[in-house]
Amino acid sequence: MSIAICPGTFDPVTSGHLDVIGRASRFFDRFIIAVAASAAKQPMFSLEERVALLEKSACNLDNVEIRSFDTLLILLARELGATAIVKGLRAISDFEYEFQMSQINSRMDENVETFFVMASPEHSFLSSSAVRELGVYGGSISGMVPREIEADLTKLFDEKYGRKRKGA
Amino acid sequence: MSIAICPGTFDPVTSGHLDVIGRASRFFDRFIIAVAASAAKQPMFSLEERVALLEKSACNLDNVEIRSFDTLLILLARELGATAIVKGLRAISDFEYEFQMSQINSRMDENVETFFVMASPEHSFLSSSAVRELGVYGGSISGMVPREIEADLTKLFDEKYGRKRKGA
Amino acid sequence: MSIAICPGTFDPVTSGHLDVIGRASRFFDRFIIAVAASAAKQPMFSLEERVALLEKSACNLDNVEIRSFDTLLILLARELGATAIVKGLRAISDFEYEFQMSQINSRMDENVETFFVMASPEHSFLSSSAVRELGVYGGSISGMVPREIEADLTKLFDEKYGRKRKGA
Amino acid sequence: MSIAICPGTFDPVTSGHLDVIGRASRFFDRFIIAVAASAAKQPMFSLEERVALLEKSACNLDNVEIRSFDTLLILLARELGATAIVKGLRAISDFEYEFQMSQINSRMDENVETFFVMASPEHSFLSSSAVRELGVYGGSISGMVPREIEADLTKLFDEKYGRKRKGA
Amino acid sequence: MSIAICPGTFDPVTSGHLDVIGRASRFFDRFIIAVAASAAKQPMFSLEERVALLEKSACNLDNVEIRSFDTLLILLARELGATAIVKGLRAISDFEYEFQMSQINSRMDENVETFFVMASPEHSFLSSSAVRELGVYGGSISGMVPREIEADLTKLFDEKYGRKRKGA
Amino acid sequence: MSIAICPGTFDPVTSGHLDVIGRASRFFDRFIIAVAASAAKQPMFSLEERVALLEKSACNLDNVEIRSFDTLLILLARELGATAIVKGLRAISDFEYEFQMSQINSRMDENVETFFVMASPEHSFLSSSAVRELGVYGGSISGMVPREIEADLTKLFDEKYGRKRKGA
Repeated sequence: MSIAICPGTFDPVTSGHLDVIGRASRFFDRFIIAVAASAAKQPMFSLEERVALLEKSACNLDNVEIRSFDTLLILLARELGATAIVKGLRAISDFEYEFQMSQINSRMDENVETFFVMASPEHSFLSSSAVRELGVYGGSISGMVPREIEADLTKLFDEKYGRKRKGA
Repeated sequence: MSIAICPGTFDPVTSGHLDVIGRASRFFDRFIIAVAASAAKQPMFSLEERVALLEKSACNLDNVEIRSFDTLLILLARELGATAIVKGLRAISDFEYEFQMSQINSRMDENVETFFVMASPEHSFLSSSAVRELGVYGGSISGMVPREIEADLTKLFDEKYGRKRKGA
Repeated sequence: MSIAICPGTFDPVTSGHLDVIGRASRFFDRFIIAVAASAAKQPMFSLEERVALLEKSACNLDNVEIRSFDTLLILLARELGATAIVKGLRAISDFEYEFQMSQINSRMDENVETFFVMASPEHSFLSSSAVRELGVYGGSISGMVPREIEADLTKLFDEKYGRKRKGA
Repeated sequence: MSIAICPGTFDPVTSGHLDVIGRASRFFDRFIIAVAASAAKQPMFSLEERVALLEKSACNLDNVEIRSFDTLLILLARELGATAIVKGLRAISDFEYEFQMSQINSRMDENVETFFVMASPEHSFLSSSAVRELGVYGGSISGMVPREIEADLTKLFDEKYGRKRKGA
Repeated sequence: MSIAICPGTFDPVTSGHLDVIGRASRFFDRFIIAVAASAAKQPMFSLEERVALLEKSACNLDNVEIRSFDTLLILLARELGATAIVKGLRAISDFEYEFQMSQINSRMDENVETFFVMASPEHSFLSSSAVRELGVYGGSISGMVPREIEADLTKLFDEKYGRKRKGA
Repeated sequence: MSIAICPGTFDPVTSGHLDVIGRASRFFDRFIIAVAASAAKQPMFSLEERVALLEKSACNLDNVEIRSFDTLLILLARELGATAIVKGLRAISDFEYEFQMSQINSRMDENVETFFVMASPEHSFLSSSAVRELGVYGGSISGMVPREIEADLTKLFDEKYGRKRKGA
């Protein structure tokens, strides 16, 4: 049985993430989305919120599971028996960091291979940070996040930042 | 009447910024330099200081105005009736971020177009962060910032960092 | 009156070119698409074919004119009284070359400014060479070139390469 | 049954190619190395030579097959029933071209997914063109090509370029 | 007598740093490794720890000295009579920042030249931040840092982060 | 005695080349500019012309010699007893190719080290191909090539391309 991990901070999940997940998960028996705690990045959404948004977004993908982790990715891969890591790439800046990480992971465990999938053109400009910036200022995030969570996420942004929003 | 916005943090304005402003402003009736509050970036200079330095630097450009903002750029563009956003590009790292931002802005309002202007060769290595680093350690910023504000800026650096400067 | 030149080889024009032309031409009184002879690149389509395909594609843009040239771009700009050069950017590799060209042009005539416009996400992967590769092997170019010329271009590909096409 | 294609010109195959093939082929039932005729690139080695060198190099990988093609990759994928394309990436310049190709292929057939695998650090500087340059001038290609073909390839270089080699 | 400075934060020194130091130091009479205080980067290791790790790593390179600094690099170069700055490059992101810094330094003192040396392939994926990430989570750093300090560094990581390590 | 080689095609030498040569040659006892025959690139100027233009340009640099070569660079380095290769870098595209070449050379002979020097900002947009393009169309190359050869080079361009120049 082939098992893949798709790691990320998902702060929050975007339509681009879900597109990559949908396309790549078809190639594996189990496809585990691993949400990194990433405390050092000071995420805007809590680990629980990020997992919940992913669960709602990916609920109709049968072989996809969501879980959180706070360790080295390669240790998680071994624990789960995963032999593949799947990452989406959008741009050059993604490329260099992911290149480095895949080589470190490969050096730590040569049985785990990293596969990269390119973002679709219509998602190439999309990032969690862009969604956060729009959300903080009350801009519309429609089309940038999975339809299933658009209302939930808008509500979360309103709760967290509604009071602070100022005019130009 | 054609109205353009030229957004940035300008922490502080450099000779490179002023060069781009001078070259691009000729093509529009009104050219509005929009200084972002950018609280998340923790600017070294206050919003008032950044606006004042720009006003002194650009005082002899008749169709150029300075103002501050703390909202989404595209909302400011609509408020001002601007149909163009003008940005200077120096390097690849600028390119990727600006590419993403122009696509998000274009998606939010297709009537607002982003135009990019390349920095002149002699300014291609210049950045606000380089000016800040020199200023903090008491290095000369001559030629890196507009002549009109060189003395003011040197004084500001001395006031903020004069005491902390250490020998090698 | 503001006059802009939009130079290129256009071998052949793509939907991405036309998108940039449509968006940028609104900002100028006259917008002249200048088709470079580019003999050194050994274009697949003749200069006449390339001009004709552009004329059919841009026929409903009132202030847009098409012409060919075989000289330095900056000399053409002076001849036409143009003060702006407009180029589309898709990717990093575009960026470096265009950066260099804009600095050389600026050095030759500082009154002519180069403005860059980013390709739309849905066109970011599109290039004339990709269209040529598809066309040569008889793949569909639908959606990759302006609708007005899809049939003409498919016919041109068939005439030039129809006999050579082989099975896999 | 999962079928993947790994396309390239392989002019000639390098240790870097074989490393990627070895690592990625484990994830598929059939893994077909597709050698492009690439007449436009004017390969140094004939299609037959390139296929023969690959067959000798990959002979101990059971699920790997070699074949040549001269059509659009996506048409070959359909013919073979392949749902995955696998490509190795070494550097930024690879990235941009492959990014573009994967988006064009995805647009032509959304059932075929492109997966990228990063070259190992010790192969990141390796390319067919570097091997060719060394070979032409009689430099040692040991370690840069699969051990199985080192002697064959050295002999081919000697036959083709032995007479032309000059002193410095 | 030729004197070179090799500046960095070295938080901590890696095998890649030591490789560059060993290769470049042969070309100068005195080769001074200058450890930047870099308070703004909030280093994981204290300035004293970083200097001590470098001293142990480079102890068998006769013409290499270690010292710390907290000023502009170019001022340190003048104080030491150095005419060369030596930096290692791994990747594109290094390149752009170092390019900018070398141009600023060259502008401040044209008698000081910056030389760049490329990282070896086997170190191209290595960075201090990757070592820190592994160390924090208790992963093995063997081969990523100089052999002489592997035990010391592992002990430092255990002291600082041993208690916080969590399971996946 | 320290000996360095500075290799290139120099088709033709530019002010940027000479700037790098002047700055780097101070650090070596002998500094040998090695002009590659580069037949595969089909240079515009003959090997003799390229060498002659360099000799006139660098005539006042005492420790600089010019010679041509048509072999692997590393073999030339050994023949000359050189322990350093010096290359100028302008842009990202330079970087990737030079990175690859330095790693191949280092692998072939670990006693020869490659040092890179960044182009000055005012030369960063300059390239031999840009000079050729200007020269072919009769544009001014003043400031782009060493003053000593400006007249010679203009004459060479006129002889080769004077008749072909066309109006726009």
